[in-house]
Amino acid sequence: MVTGILKQVSFFSGLGSADLNKVLSIAGVKKYTAGQMVFAKQDLGNNFFIVKSGRIKIFTTVGGKRKIFAFLKKGEFFGEMSLLGGRVRSASAQAVADSELFVISKKNFRRLLCENPEFSLKLLQTLAERLSKANRDVESMLFHNILGRLAEAILDLSRDTRAKPVKMAIDQNELAQYLGTTRVPVCRAINTLKRSGIIDYRRGELVILNQARLKSMAGEA
Amino acid sequence: MVTGILKQVSFFSGLGSADLNKVLSIAGVKKYTAGQMVFAKQDLGNNFFIVKSGRIKIFTTVGGKRKIFAFLKKGEFFGEMSLLGGRVRSASAQAVADSELFVISKKNFRRLLCENPEFSLKLLQTLAERLSKANRDVESMLFHNILGRLAEAILDLSRDTRAKPVKMAIDQNELAQYLGTTRVPVCRAINTLKRSGIIDYRRGELVILNQARLKSMAGEA
Repeated sequence: MVTGILKQVSFFSGLGSADLNKVLSIAGVKKYTAGQMVFAKQDLGNNFFIVKSGRIKIFTTVGGKRKIFAFLKKGEFFGEMSLLGGRVRSASAQAVADSELFVISKKNFRRLLCENPEFSLKLLQTLAERLSKANRDVESMLFHNILGRLAEAILDLSRDTRAKPVKMAIDQNELAQYLGTTRVPVCRAINTLKRSGIIDYRRGELVILNQARLKSMAGEA
Repeated sequence: MVTGILKQVSFFSGLGSADLNKVLSIAGVKKYTAGQMVFAKQDLGNNFFIVKSGRIKIFTTVGGKRKIFAFLKKGEFFGEMSLLGGRVRSASAQAVADSELFVISKKNFRRLLCENPEFSLKLLQTLAERLSKANRDVESMLFHNILGRLAEAILDLSRDTRAKPVKMAIDQNELAQYLGTTRVPVCRAINTLKRSGIIDYRRGELVILNQARLKSMAGEA
């Protein structure tokens, strides 16, 4: 039955039942309360994590400034980087809501990789996606102004939302940190998008009113 | 004998002989002259490439501006991104010197992944490294000024050079594009580093004179 639940979860959806049972048999489960750190940048990395429930923020801090790389939810994973190479964590991870994580040790992670081609393929696809996202971030910072970057960030963060019109709860500070900037310019950019009728934003809820114009501002075809 | 040669090459160094022979048996070899494009961003991706000899530039262009992501040499690979997910190329690839490439078709690439755990592991490690590099690029752009970014780029580009002091041939335009900026600010920053006795730069050859100070400017410990 647990296998059934897991199969609905994105990371596991590409895995066969045999692979899935193997993952399950070696994973522990750990609970984190909202605000609790899972690990900090530069910690030694000894575990791989899959989100069972809740929401995890991946971010970096340099000299007091903060950049959020991603918000991860049910079925998404993290912590693979230091197990694949660098030994120390390349970013920090923090629970932003009460969360449960599947925890897999370094040794078991390596075993999964060697024994389960589907597991490796799934990991490879996700790393390729994240790399592609990071390169788009770089492009975006070099070539776009704050409005284009905000448009892109809103589209990124809403990509899995099925409801039409797209609504999402997001804090202005979080949005600023996702862009790696401060609250004031983001607040100004939000107001510009509101005045143009492209989005609405009230009490922490953002609604996309004109997806086509948002895409064109983000430089998407 | 070819197996012997390949084993010295970084991508293959982690593979056993059986895996290696499998890669070899399914790869074609293609020649490119200096300046020739291997593929362009947005092309459909149907091949995976390993550099046999020469030098390949991976870059993106947005509205006339250019950003170089990497220079790849013997034993390094590229082209995996669109085979793992996105279908179209996420960046452009061009030979900057006369080059030979091993070419592996999409179908054979998938077969290699499923049948050879070591091949997958090697790919995963490299993607993790590149993701980590991309995230450092993002951090660097957000948190450093042009001097810090130049210091970081010089260290990146010289990472595999064994000679002491480190010398490398690099064009100011290429350096600017590696930073995603234009020639003038880079030229100014190079002169600052020269005046401080940290590097020397003459007729396209850069010499690192004070690695420790360069590292501290780049924010490395």
